[in-house]
Amino acid sequence: MEHTIEFRVRYEETDQMGVVYYANYLVWFEVARTEFFRARGVEYKKLEEEDNLYLPVIEAYCRYKSPLKYDDVVTIKTKFAGTDASRISFEYSVTKGAKLSAVGRTLHVFVNEKGKPVKVPAKVRKVFDEID
Amino acid sequence: MEHTIEFRVRYEETDQMGVVYYANYLVWFEVARTEFFRARGVEYKKLEEEDNLYLPVIEAYCRYKSPLKYDDVVTIKTKFAGTDASRISFEYSVTKGAKLSAVGRTLHVFVNEKGKPVKVPAKVRKVFDEID
Amino acid sequence: MEHTIEFRVRYEETDQMGVVYYANYLVWFEVARTEFFRARGVEYKKLEEEDNLYLPVIEAYCRYKSPLKYDDVVTIKTKFAGTDASRISFEYSVTKGAKLSAVGRTLHVFVNEKGKPVKVPAKVRKVFDEID
Amino acid sequence: MEHTIEFRVRYEETDQMGVVYYANYLVWFEVARTEFFRARGVEYKKLEEEDNLYLPVIEAYCRYKSPLKYDDVVTIKTKFAGTDASRISFEYSVTKGAKLSAVGRTLHVFVNEKGKPVKVPAKVRKVFDEID
Repeated sequence: MEHTIEFRVRYEETDQMGVVYYANYLVWFEVARTEFFRARGVEYKKLEEEDNLYLPVIEAYCRYKSPLKYDDVVTIKTKFAGTDASRISFEYSVTKGAKLSAVGRTLHVFVNEKGKPVKVPAKVRKVFDEID
Repeated sequence: MEHTIEFRVRYEETDQMGVVYYANYLVWFEVARTEFFRARGVEYKKLEEEDNLYLPVIEAYCRYKSPLKYDDVVTIKTKFAGTDASRISFEYSVTKGAKLSAVGRTLHVFVNEKGKPVKVPAKVRKVFDEID
Repeated sequence: MEHTIEFRVRYEETDQMGVVYYANYLVWFEVARTEFFRARGVEYKKLEEEDNLYLPVIEAYCRYKSPLKYDDVVTIKTKFAGTDASRISFEYSVTKGAKLSAVGRTLHVFVNEKGKPVKVPAKVRKVFDEID
Repeated sequence: MEHTIEFRVRYEETDQMGVVYYANYLVWFEVARTEFFRARGVEYKKLEEEDNLYLPVIEAYCRYKSPLKYDDVVTIKTKFAGTDASRISFEYSVTKGAKLSAVGRTLHVFVNEKGKPVKVPAKVRKVFDEID
């Protein structure tokens, strides 16, 4: 099960090579995750605000295949890629039209306000159970 | 009274025009302020951590005169530019060697953890009284 | 004559004060300008690619009135604010719902690939003549 | 063979979780690479300017172990991690004092101004031959 977002490359996201600077893909993955959750009825900000739960990244990977330019229309597909007691992972594909620009993966752990790992909260677990 | 910092332009800070993207000057001003305070015995992070005081920017201005490039060695001079009950302001000059790249100005207000303006804290006031 | 864009605050755009970091408003102004031009039939990227014309910022100003948070839906209104032989300026208002978050202003100069100021290109001039 | 850089976390690099936003580690890796090359007599900017050679990232990985905060003094050790005809890779460790914050890895390919892979240039090859 996937969620798709589409947006345009900002001028700020380019570098002097004339293409998108590599770290920005990780920024986009985060935007894609927020929307993945929202599309399934979970507002990530409420997890922080109401439940004092946070979802830091503990692992990030990106493979860059084709550069992107300013003003390109970019599509990111986010796929749930597994969960255990306190961790969840996502996979991403970044495309421009039919062309694959990059693939990525992030691994996250749910923690409380003290940074201690906690169980995946029920309302999030529910989302992924429906996916499985 | 001034404080000077020196650093190199990061690749990430450039854009496809081949020069530093304009918003990054504001990031540098913030680094310059941190070091201005530190040089006078005030650690800004402790104002936040220990005193629950914050110093958001309420006004920012920059005039760009000559572009900067990746790996350029940049100098920023920070000058205290005035204070009143709860606000302080700074002026900045950004140079590369003898060449002026930009001048800027920021205005800040001290607020408490609820965002309410408070008096300039005594330890900061002391710094500026010495400058006057 | 105005153009309006709407988008959500990215997690990356926040800082440890829990609000949007001040330099990001300048990034948003740039996105707003791109869309202002596009809405009037001018693709900024083509000015660079096809005409070797660039539109660097020579002055930027922002007044911050109310902080923005992660996931906030932000509206930016961009208004053409004047032109002369080679320069143009814009004004921006940043709002969240009915609440004004910030106002800003940028001044730009058209330059050629060597960084030398040139006349506002005819296709851009045409846009602004229609506005006047 | 390693090269070490040390710097302070910028306020801009934090997010509302109160720690450094994850994408910034990739920005730091780039700074670390620039200095790794410089310490061995190679200025990366000259590869671009004089030789029309570029070194985009084709793979990036980071494992986050312990968060970093604003104003932390961060150390990054960069290690050459192998090369073949046109590609080179680096490994990074990010520490604060004795505490490991993250480890990372990037893989790069040398390309010409058209984006076509080319052999690792002789002056870079020389650096790595000395390391082996």
